[in-house]
Amino acid sequence: MLLLGKPVVKKLKEETIEYIEKNNLSGSKVAIFLLNGTKASEVYVKMKAKYALNIWLIADIHFGKDRELPELLEAIDRCNEDPTYVWIMVQLPVAQQFKEHQMMILDRIDPCKDIDGLGSVRFGQAGYWSLDQDFLSATYRSAMHILDYYSLWELKGKVCLVVWKSNLIGKPLLLWLAKRGATVLSANSKTPRWVLEQLYSLAEYVFSATWVKHLINNDLTLYEWDKYVSLEKKIMIDIWWGSDENGAYGDIDGSYFEEKVKAITPVPGWVGPGTVASIFHNIISL
Amino acid sequence: MLLLGKPVVKKLKEETIEYIEKNNLSGSKVAIFLLNGTKASEVYVKMKAKYALNIWLIADIHFGKDRELPELLEAIDRCNEDPTYVWIMVQLPVAQQFKEHQMMILDRIDPCKDIDGLGSVRFGQAGYWSLDQDFLSATYRSAMHILDYYSLWELKGKVCLVVWKSNLIGKPLLLWLAKRGATVLSANSKTPRWVLEQLYSLAEYVFSATWVKHLINNDLTLYEWDKYVSLEKKIMIDIWWGSDENGAYGDIDGSYFEEKVKAITPVPGWVGPGTVASIFHNIISL
Repeated sequence: MLLLGKPVVKKLKEETIEYIEKNNLSGSKVAIFLLNGTKASEVYVKMKAKYALNIWLIADIHFGKDRELPELLEAIDRCNEDPTYVWIMVQLPVAQQFKEHQMMILDRIDPCKDIDGLGSVRFGQAGYWSLDQDFLSATYRSAMHILDYYSLWELKGKVCLVVWKSNLIGKPLLLWLAKRGATVLSANSKTPRWVLEQLYSLAEYVFSATWVKHLINNDLTLYEWDKYVSLEKKIMIDIWWGSDENGAYGDIDGSYFEEKVKAITPVPGWVGPGTVASIFHNIISL
Repeated sequence: MLLLGKPVVKKLKEETIEYIEKNNLSGSKVAIFLLNGTKASEVYVKMKAKYALNIWLIADIHFGKDRELPELLEAIDRCNEDPTYVWIMVQLPVAQQFKEHQMMILDRIDPCKDIDGLGSVRFGQAGYWSLDQDFLSATYRSAMHILDYYSLWELKGKVCLVVWKSNLIGKPLLLWLAKRGATVLSANSKTPRWVLEQLYSLAEYVFSATWVKHLINNDLTLYEWDKYVSLEKKIMIDIWWGSDENGAYGDIDGSYFEEKVKAITPVPGWVGPGTVASIFHNIISL
């Protein structure tokens, strides 16, 4: 089964619009801080601004890559204090001069306006305690939304492998899966290959967010691949995509797995639009 | 090797006293909220108060199990505002009437006084970002201290199995091990037995915090036990202990493993005193 993103995004958008209308939030402003000059970030910020418009919000983009830290913090403070800004987000990564202050910058956002859930308060609340706290930072919330939509979210007793690289996605995802009662196997770039092969063999769910093209591929399945959880039982969620001259690709080699596994997310088609829709859907829980 | 707790506690205590003296903090007050009536909590609170005295602090125990929530929150607020209280901690678990408000209670503590690191801000800061943030809630910090002391802390590329039950210990430990670059395998009560056996076989480090007597025992090692990481290479950290008519016991069946593994924590001898020493050692990082 291909876990198509479109119907999920449609549902999230409808729910968000309904909430915005019911609470008279149409026309509210969301501040987006763009703190680097990479093409990918610009694309994402444009996607966010466009999505905001589609749900009747006003995205106010603050360019900050060439600013000094004190100036940036003041700008965030102004958005915190200004009641016309209802939500604030920072597009990551930040420019070089801000790198060491990234946590301070994210923590400067008023937690009540921290729609992306990247500040310590929101992260602590979401990651630490029980399922009652359903606020989650958007990147991993998108993984939840797609599993929910396709009724694949009952994770108690399930084995989930997360192959990850960044703080942003990997660690919150570990916590969220653990909260759901899953047995979580967390692999990173330091994991010996033979261990990864074993973990892959044990896992029913495979989440990948490594930014390495086709890291999850045919080779992994050679190793006793049907000993524990065979391919036709596996569910694969790709949380990254990039592109080169041959087009879009993800962590997972879709062309190999698509016909063989129980369920897989398409690349492209989910991560980008799913993340953006999930950020704004957080409005409902803020 | 038996990972004896005494020298570690001694070192932590010396470092804490040195810091307190250097910063003229002797005689400072620490508020301890005891919000349940269990024997175990009373024992822990007494241990904390006694330890405080030993490092020249004054522990002020606030009994709250029969209070109403608003009254409790006011009492916390007073300690937040009163500069004579330098640190505040809450002994968990809380009484039944506070259960659903536990997070709110812990979040009420001023993060600057949250010596136990149980509030969302401290948890978010410690769990989320890089190793620069070395503030950790004490229960899992104690695991770090003992590994550090015995030079077993280089976890990059190592496989760590965490068998856990509670938010308090399990999830922060997952994050901390992930931050250290370990491949982390997280098992809980829903993990199928055959999966646990496989994970156990792959793990060099085994952390257990399930509150189940001798969950990690001889039986687990029957299953292909020397296929991956054999017993003489394993390092076992027990993060729980209880006692019955036969004396103290932990999650790990020490009598079976003690002579066979590379390193193991004794039960009793570490968790209790190690956790208390680790809480107060947090003074240095607050």
